[in-house]
Amino acid sequence: MKKKYVVFGVDRFGAAVARTLEKGGSQVIAVDIDPVKIQQIAEDVSYAMTADVLDPEAIEGLGLKNIDGAVITMVDHMEASIVSAMTCVDRHFPYILARAKNEVHGRILEKIGVDRIVYPEQEMGTRVGKFMDDRDFMDWIELSPEYSLVEVRVPEEWIGKTLTQLNLRRTCCFNVVGLKDEDGIIVTPDPDMPLTANLMMYIIGHNADLEKIKQ
Amino acid sequence: MKKKYVVFGVDRFGAAVARTLEKGGSQVIAVDIDPVKIQQIAEDVSYAMTADVLDPEAIEGLGLKNIDGAVITMVDHMEASIVSAMTCVDRHFPYILARAKNEVHGRILEKIGVDRIVYPEQEMGTRVGKFMDDRDFMDWIELSPEYSLVEVRVPEEWIGKTLTQLNLRRTCCFNVVGLKDEDGIIVTPDPDMPLTANLMMYIIGHNADLEKIKQ
Repeated sequence: MKKKYVVFGVDRFGAAVARTLEKGGSQVIAVDIDPVKIQQIAEDVSYAMTADVLDPEAIEGLGLKNIDGAVITMVDHMEASIVSAMTCVDRHFPYILARAKNEVHGRILEKIGVDRIVYPEQEMGTRVGKFMDDRDFMDWIELSPEYSLVEVRVPEEWIGKTLTQLNLRRTCCFNVVGLKDEDGIIVTPDPDMPLTANLMMYIIGHNADLEKIKQ
Repeated sequence: MKKKYVVFGVDRFGAAVARTLEKGGSQVIAVDIDPVKIQQIAEDVSYAMTADVLDPEAIEGLGLKNIDGAVITMVDHMEASIVSAMTCVDRHFPYILARAKNEVHGRILEKIGVDRIVYPEQEMGTRVGKFMDDRDFMDWIELSPEYSLVEVRVPEEWIGKTLTQLNLRRTCCFNVVGLKDEDGIIVTPDPDMPLTANLMMYIIGHNADLEKIKQ
């Protein structure tokens, strides 16, 4: 059976969440106080409804039954975010994810019973900052506070060598998990193929080890 | 020598970029029209200055010399974003990255000569949507339109088997690139260790193959 999600707030972030869920085969109920935003998303989701989350009757009118998960995305109006969270908790939705604008907002949502808090702008800002710092790093994705996945150009001194020769697991404790060329990503790189300058490498490793590639 | 970056706009996204760059050892000049935001970031960056990017004299006053890269983060005031981009291009900054609020904004910035455009809210919204759709997927990171890295709980039918036995590269064309347990991430998983229910797996593969693990 199709899963049913409710997305509160369809600004740029919320709209992307709603469209992705619907595209993934779920039924999405999109709710926003702004009729213009609701009109813009109406074509892309199962239900799009204008409602003020601060009005209990409006919430009743949404008929939120058998919901598998809720996403709360408002940040510029903290009261709306918190009241929506409370509404979802009161209705025992099995999973609630909410966007927070800062740590205080996040802690309040957590106390109310939100299962997962996300900070889109801070997370993306940190990623972009790490990426900017060295253009050879195309992308830097934190997997945990200590480990990251990076997309990096083949360092000059590695060109012409094979992964077997470099033996990176031994020497640097990191793992080349994929290569990318013009044709796409190779998830099972041949360890005996010499590396070329046009390749990008995906590497998972300890942040301290990954920093060294930059130098 | 330390790299020198200028970050225009220090909202939540811009502030995260600026702090990450400064923390990474670079000198950051943070610029915003709002003195309150400048005050909030002042302690964390090398230079924080209030200026209106639409005022040529104010820009002159910033003394932007020997800049290694610029990050333009304003989206609610498109004119400010575009004028900042033009200023950076005119000064031949070697690398310019800008945040765009939508595709039109992005195309304009690209025409002006911005090197890389990012859409933080859309990107994070898509990630969250993919993640929500199945809670067994802890995270889903798109590496390219076709390939992704996912963090996923060990599927029930794999528990007790080893990576060698599963031979996933052959059977599903994807690559287990790391495991995570309570102690942290293992980037060089032992292929002969039986998988346990408490493990999370990092897998790189084709989106269509990864979708199958959900079922």
